[in-house]
Amino acid sequence: MIMEDNNLAEDKMEEECGIFGVYSKEVRDDIMGLGYYGLFALQHRGQESAGLTVSNMGVLETIKGMGLVSEVFTDKDLTENKGNALIGHVRYSTTGSSSLMNAQPLGGYFMLGQFAIAHNGNLVNTATLRRQLESESAVFQTTTDTELILNLLSRYSRNGIKSMIVNTMKTIKGSFALVMLIGDKLIGVRDPNGIRPLCLGKINGGTYVLASETCALDTVDAKFIRDIEPGEIVIIDSDGVDSIKYEKNSSKAPCSFEYIYFARPDTKIDGIDVYSVRHQTGKYLYRQNPIEADVVIGVPDSGIPAAIGYSEESKIPYGIGLVKNKYIGRTFISPSQELREKSVKVKLNAIKKVVEGKRVVVIDDSLVRGTTSKKLVKMLREAGAKEVHFRSASPVVKNECYFGIDIATKKELIGSKMSLEEIREKIDADSLDYLTLENLKLTLGGTNFCMGCFTGNYPITDMENKSLEDEDADL
Amino acid sequence: MIMEDNNLAEDKMEEECGIFGVYSKEVRDDIMGLGYYGLFALQHRGQESAGLTVSNMGVLETIKGMGLVSEVFTDKDLTENKGNALIGHVRYSTTGSSSLMNAQPLGGYFMLGQFAIAHNGNLVNTATLRRQLESESAVFQTTTDTELILNLLSRYSRNGIKSMIVNTMKTIKGSFALVMLIGDKLIGVRDPNGIRPLCLGKINGGTYVLASETCALDTVDAKFIRDIEPGEIVIIDSDGVDSIKYEKNSSKAPCSFEYIYFARPDTKIDGIDVYSVRHQTGKYLYRQNPIEADVVIGVPDSGIPAAIGYSEESKIPYGIGLVKNKYIGRTFISPSQELREKSVKVKLNAIKKVVEGKRVVVIDDSLVRGTTSKKLVKMLREAGAKEVHFRSASPVVKNECYFGIDIATKKELIGSKMSLEEIREKIDADSLDYLTLENLKLTLGGTNFCMGCFTGNYPITDMENKSLEDEDADL
Amino acid sequence: MIMEDNNLAEDKMEEECGIFGVYSKEVRDDIMGLGYYGLFALQHRGQESAGLTVSNMGVLETIKGMGLVSEVFTDKDLTENKGNALIGHVRYSTTGSSSLMNAQPLGGYFMLGQFAIAHNGNLVNTATLRRQLESESAVFQTTTDTELILNLLSRYSRNGIKSMIVNTMKTIKGSFALVMLIGDKLIGVRDPNGIRPLCLGKINGGTYVLASETCALDTVDAKFIRDIEPGEIVIIDSDGVDSIKYEKNSSKAPCSFEYIYFARPDTKIDGIDVYSVRHQTGKYLYRQNPIEADVVIGVPDSGIPAAIGYSEESKIPYGIGLVKNKYIGRTFISPSQELREKSVKVKLNAIKKVVEGKRVVVIDDSLVRGTTSKKLVKMLREAGAKEVHFRSASPVVKNECYFGIDIATKKELIGSKMSLEEIREKIDADSLDYLTLENLKLTLGGTNFCMGCFTGNYPITDMENKSLEDEDADL
Amino acid sequence: MIMEDNNLAEDKMEEECGIFGVYSKEVRDDIMGLGYYGLFALQHRGQESAGLTVSNMGVLETIKGMGLVSEVFTDKDLTENKGNALIGHVRYSTTGSSSLMNAQPLGGYFMLGQFAIAHNGNLVNTATLRRQLESESAVFQTTTDTELILNLLSRYSRNGIKSMIVNTMKTIKGSFALVMLIGDKLIGVRDPNGIRPLCLGKINGGTYVLASETCALDTVDAKFIRDIEPGEIVIIDSDGVDSIKYEKNSSKAPCSFEYIYFARPDTKIDGIDVYSVRHQTGKYLYRQNPIEADVVIGVPDSGIPAAIGYSEESKIPYGIGLVKNKYIGRTFISPSQELREKSVKVKLNAIKKVVEGKRVVVIDDSLVRGTTSKKLVKMLREAGAKEVHFRSASPVVKNECYFGIDIATKKELIGSKMSLEEIREKIDADSLDYLTLENLKLTLGGTNFCMGCFTGNYPITDMENKSLEDEDADL
Repeated sequence: MIMEDNNLAEDKMEEECGIFGVYSKEVRDDIMGLGYYGLFALQHRGQESAGLTVSNMGVLETIKGMGLVSEVFTDKDLTENKGNALIGHVRYSTTGSSSLMNAQPLGGYFMLGQFAIAHNGNLVNTATLRRQLESESAVFQTTTDTELILNLLSRYSRNGIKSMIVNTMKTIKGSFALVMLIGDKLIGVRDPNGIRPLCLGKINGGTYVLASETCALDTVDAKFIRDIEPGEIVIIDSDGVDSIKYEKNSSKAPCSFEYIYFARPDTKIDGIDVYSVRHQTGKYLYRQNPIEADVVIGVPDSGIPAAIGYSEESKIPYGIGLVKNKYIGRTFISPSQELREKSVKVKLNAIKKVVEGKRVVVIDDSLVRGTTSKKLVKMLREAGAKEVHFRSASPVVKNECYFGIDIATKKELIGSKMSLEEIREKIDADSLDYLTLENLKLTLGGTNFCMGCFTGNYPITDMENKSLEDEDADL
Repeated sequence: MIMEDNNLAEDKMEEECGIFGVYSKEVRDDIMGLGYYGLFALQHRGQESAGLTVSNMGVLETIKGMGLVSEVFTDKDLTENKGNALIGHVRYSTTGSSSLMNAQPLGGYFMLGQFAIAHNGNLVNTATLRRQLESESAVFQTTTDTELILNLLSRYSRNGIKSMIVNTMKTIKGSFALVMLIGDKLIGVRDPNGIRPLCLGKINGGTYVLASETCALDTVDAKFIRDIEPGEIVIIDSDGVDSIKYEKNSSKAPCSFEYIYFARPDTKIDGIDVYSVRHQTGKYLYRQNPIEADVVIGVPDSGIPAAIGYSEESKIPYGIGLVKNKYIGRTFISPSQELREKSVKVKLNAIKKVVEGKRVVVIDDSLVRGTTSKKLVKMLREAGAKEVHFRSASPVVKNECYFGIDIATKKELIGSKMSLEEIREKIDADSLDYLTLENLKLTLGGTNFCMGCFTGNYPITDMENKSLEDEDADL
Repeated sequence: MIMEDNNLAEDKMEEECGIFGVYSKEVRDDIMGLGYYGLFALQHRGQESAGLTVSNMGVLETIKGMGLVSEVFTDKDLTENKGNALIGHVRYSTTGSSSLMNAQPLGGYFMLGQFAIAHNGNLVNTATLRRQLESESAVFQTTTDTELILNLLSRYSRNGIKSMIVNTMKTIKGSFALVMLIGDKLIGVRDPNGIRPLCLGKINGGTYVLASETCALDTVDAKFIRDIEPGEIVIIDSDGVDSIKYEKNSSKAPCSFEYIYFARPDTKIDGIDVYSVRHQTGKYLYRQNPIEADVVIGVPDSGIPAAIGYSEESKIPYGIGLVKNKYIGRTFISPSQELREKSVKVKLNAIKKVVEGKRVVVIDDSLVRGTTSKKLVKMLREAGAKEVHFRSASPVVKNECYFGIDIATKKELIGSKMSLEEIREKIDADSLDYLTLENLKLTLGGTNFCMGCFTGNYPITDMENKSLEDEDADL
Repeated sequence: MIMEDNNLAEDKMEEECGIFGVYSKEVRDDIMGLGYYGLFALQHRGQESAGLTVSNMGVLETIKGMGLVSEVFTDKDLTENKGNALIGHVRYSTTGSSSLMNAQPLGGYFMLGQFAIAHNGNLVNTATLRRQLESESAVFQTTTDTELILNLLSRYSRNGIKSMIVNTMKTIKGSFALVMLIGDKLIGVRDPNGIRPLCLGKINGGTYVLASETCALDTVDAKFIRDIEPGEIVIIDSDGVDSIKYEKNSSKAPCSFEYIYFARPDTKIDGIDVYSVRHQTGKYLYRQNPIEADVVIGVPDSGIPAAIGYSEESKIPYGIGLVKNKYIGRTFISPSQELREKSVKVKLNAIKKVVEGKRVVVIDDSLVRGTTSKKLVKMLREAGAKEVHFRSASPVVKNECYFGIDIATKKELIGSKMSLEEIREKIDADSLDYLTLENLKLTLGGTNFCMGCFTGNYPITDMENKSLEDEDADL
């Protein structure tokens, strides 16, 4: 009966996590506040759980819970815990009774003291690693791949911190952006292909910040320094920032969907502005298939910049044709099936004045399952639109993601089983078009991106078929 | 330490309430679901408390609580209560331990059975009424003006329902849109000036709906029939809709701020489209003071339509220059004064790419206290804007509101004490302009509106100075 | 699935409420603490809800909630509210969604300012009163008889406080012990027959205390002064304690079940020691039917004193034969019917060593429905008892109570439909005996008691058949 | 401001935990109900947290939380989880934010699948074990000694389950009664000295039960089979109960304080009846120092059986002189220091009638710090006692416990620093006596008990000085 938070986004792919880290030479009274603000800016990357681990010169304390950042932490949590370093995590919704167990950061005690880790991404060799570690007597309390990383660190801890981290990172495969606390040090890591984002910033006075997105740097008034490189480890301690390139031969392949949908529009990843990419996709969408229309509208929130770009390129006026109810949240109830069917209008409503009697171009960031698109077209027609031309600001999604994005199965992907015309007919649009792969490359300014969900070609080739959790589920 | 929900909106006026009602000849299983959806669409009118009273053929049950609609009602509440009529209420944030006591609907037992009431607005003769009723042995459990109405209804109940309602409405003064359940009947009332909105709709099959705004009709798939008239009572029962005009000589004067800020853009009030009004204000703003600039941006959410209108009129490109964090909610904590000062960026962030190196026109719906505007200008300059031209899509707010809008005191209104140039200097904009009163009238298409906060002329002249709650507070 | 708190006591009658009041000339910082301690000592009289209303020189604040005293009040509630007078209430479990609405104290505003009331007992002319008050335009928000009293006070408020209270008390009929705050005054009232208890005490330094039982005086270190008389009003203010005897011709008839079961053993009511009464009943039980046995045990908690008395009189050794799990609380779950059947042992367990191979006399305070008694006999036999002789420390309960005690219906009373021998057979005891009515009178030292549940003769004769709530239930 | 649950018991030692286990060949629908009832019967052994792990043929699910058994589990928890085996745990109150982390059962995944453990007791070689395991790459998520046991099991898992358990048990030192789930098997273990209790029972139809105390067997209608032997492992699976004696040369030394205070009076440990022991101590107390008095009373609850024994031996009448408020719980607030000082009466109150004008013998089970005893003597004198003769039903406590009992430090033990006469003077009794060590041995019927807290001689000699948690605290 409970609809998911991103229910509006049932046509979307879903992100796993956001991570954040802070390092200061001296203990800061406000370090939890910085962490709270940082996670708050990354809330769009995960709404299921939130957590912060603070290191007071090596003594770690973790506070985490289910829910939004603003629900998990109390005023007391934020003011009574002090420290010199911190990591934080927000997690996308999963299900099951073990949810709190799986919340991050995940911490522990090992030979070198206390440590903790927060992880965005998905490992693809977990089953092998797990079997190996269990045969070496490891005990696991969760089924997360993050706990594997803790155990690998411990296994490699004999020759000092650098060797420990490098060996661990060389052992795991998949997508991972990590922030870790080892004693009083802050560590950041990005996988060899840089699939998940991670950047470094600095607050006046010398406090370092690591974050999934630059918008989180802005929130704590940190200046952006640089993105962490694919295959790079940064160890931040009282000696400053030490960088290790543990994997030099890998090709850069950041996730293209970060630009299309996941990231906030005020974020810049690997030097590329998210808003600009989205704005450009609109321009290309018009150019690749110019049509006549009276108004261009966007599906809130991530379809809006493309709609503005489309309007600029086509000279067709831009308007707000759809309003989103901003109070839709995790706990929204759909009291009955009939009401549920009827009421996409609970979440989105058309502004009649804008679309009535008009030929409407409507742009969404993507079209994954097609169910919401169909409802939107119907809503616009009921509001009086004469024609509805649907545009997807990304190419056809045809394949699953193995790097941390939740697309249930290939057969749910409308693009993997239907032709363009079949989809157009299904969603009942007057015309339908997707951004071409070529044009996506042009907006991104290159080909060094993971576009596996569009092309089926992934930057990593030897993935174990399923994650451990899937295997468990099969039992 | 807790920031208010509309904290972003500290430069805004604040609305009191939203109301909703449903009437069906037969008992509906899904009536609570309809109420839930209806209130959800009105959530922007009040986030402090929410409540629903359902009438099962005259037996009333009320469920209410503190918080958002999605927090107050459980799945069980919505599925286990059935009935033929319902009223609902969302309430804007007030303070104090008596909050739940003051949540609405407020119900009771009287000579004619059970009744309940939900009220949007503010009475201006409460002290007199209260004194009178107490002298007639009434006991009050709250300090709300709504409880006065319940007692007046009971006092006038001897000559039947119509007489009871008419006499009560003639006795109270101020702004009021009311929905009431009296036994199994649904009643709607609008004050003689129609200051607060109320409209009537119908769901296929004959279920009637009353709502503060048309967007709530859309949510439950009801067709708009008409606005309730100023000075009109509608009694909806098994005989259909009976209309009584209890006050014929009053002048229509709906609140102009509903169009400027309170109402949702997809709502139409008294035949006028909210989105169009806002869009038009942008056009007038450019015409009354054309300047050269490189980009026009709006302050989310209610400044956006004006910015689009301004762009259309001026041919200056429209862009998304400011992004709002959509997870800001009632419980957001500001962990320390320093962080708080710094961090308007927690709630709003500039998109550098859009404003960098540019002459920026930024449009907000209004400018009440001036504190947020100053921070916005600073944020835009830090993001690289060369010039910042600030525009208010409404005239200068100079006076208090006595009809249900929370403007603390006249001395907090920046417009009541500073000249245009002084304000411009204070917020550090390169230029500043407000929509002229004349242009507001042109966009609204007439002068039959309450514009008391701009002009000091109110549709009601014999207001008691303060509400009872203020009097209590003075003790 | 949830078992009631006094589930162990399913063979018991159930009390409605406990009340408490404090008056001090000066504002006390710790007045909420006194109220909390007082209610805590009366917790056995009601576990559903708890509430305190504090008067700070006439300004009243109420805090109340569902649950135990220790659950309802927070540390902040107790330390941040100061005042010169206070009333408090604990309420026995009822059901329904309106529970919090019905929690007490119930307060309001009327012509003379603020007032509040807490009530133990049950009126028997509520339907008439309600009809009358509604015809005089009163509005009720609950279905409690307590709200009637508030409205009557308001109706009689024209000629000053004394007249108001006297007239109100003369108008209501039934059992009532009341504590009230009217502005900054504390008022205590006991019904003309003194059916429910109320006593007066004083803390060093001049603070007065009113309480249902003397044990609550002990808790706040107050010295017992005297019991309030049947038909007496005490008005406590800065002039001290003023007593009004508003009903002089009534006969004293305090509830005999207070001594048998409701009151705490460390309490004294109307000059009679509760522990002594219970201890004496054991002696009389032996004398009226002396038998041979090896051990005497009591059913915890209220059967224990009688067992000790029986042992003293008979010289048969006393032992602890049954242990009660002290963690049984309101929220205990009985996961399945089978487990529930089996497991009276969850709540009570026999000590084998004490009963094995022995002839056991087991004494309970009363025997209302017979269901628990049967399980106890079985449990003792399974633990090895050779013979089980059951004794009830009160006479046979044959009639309903109209004065605030919850006995569902006459047909549930085993004593109203079965002979002694039939009951003995049903509970499978070797012998069974009840205290005779004559011996109960001897232990109580007189006949001035309400023994309606034993005899069918009640001190009030013109009771309306049912309470209003029953009438509602019938609709 | 919050007083502890056993605040009444501030003169008491405090127990750590209770454990419970169930094994059935087939999956039972009601297995969680059995676990709930079992833990409920052991609630007196720990009120901080409660947990159950159920094995559905090897797939383990754990539900645990802070609070009482009746607070932690929901109806849904108990009815929706099915399984063939289960372990449960209740934990005594500790402090700190890591509380939930430390709640048991503690479970995990290792080479042989899933396992879980619940532990009553305290290891004394934790620091060594921890250092060793960390050097072998173990990661710990808590600071509990229970997590050490999980890791040791994993370390020894190569040669099958029996070898794994035997090797683990030989490696750990200290007091431990354990129940474990390994896949679908239930395992019980008792330390070589049998310091903590554990017994085996059977429910009709072949379901086996392990429990800390026999009273938990009674609750689920299980028949007592036998106590687990010191140094014994029992492995219960589809082949029945397999017993392994892993330590044959150790001397039996169960904790004597279980009989004096911890265990429920309806429990039997190692063949000895707890009630009888307590009852006997009263007889010996009189014999070793016969005095004249008018009444004997016990301090509830554990002083009562001794008082009854004293009365039988001395022929001085037994009475209920002190009543305990049964609603004292974990959340009781003491609103101010002054009230707190005053109000031992909130928790205990004297029955005046019983002690007034009398020479009173009052018996408590022990006298650890002396603070409560002093208040009791004062309370009895205020209630009118002419003489107060205080008796402790156990010898003088002079030493700390290293096996799981919480006695803060030696210097808090009044018996370790004062003479009998000094203590008598401090608590202001007319006479004071403790049970002699000789008489304790006579009541227990032997010397094979740990009496370290009385004598300083412990069954284990090479204890590391402090637990790991203490060491942490020192950092």
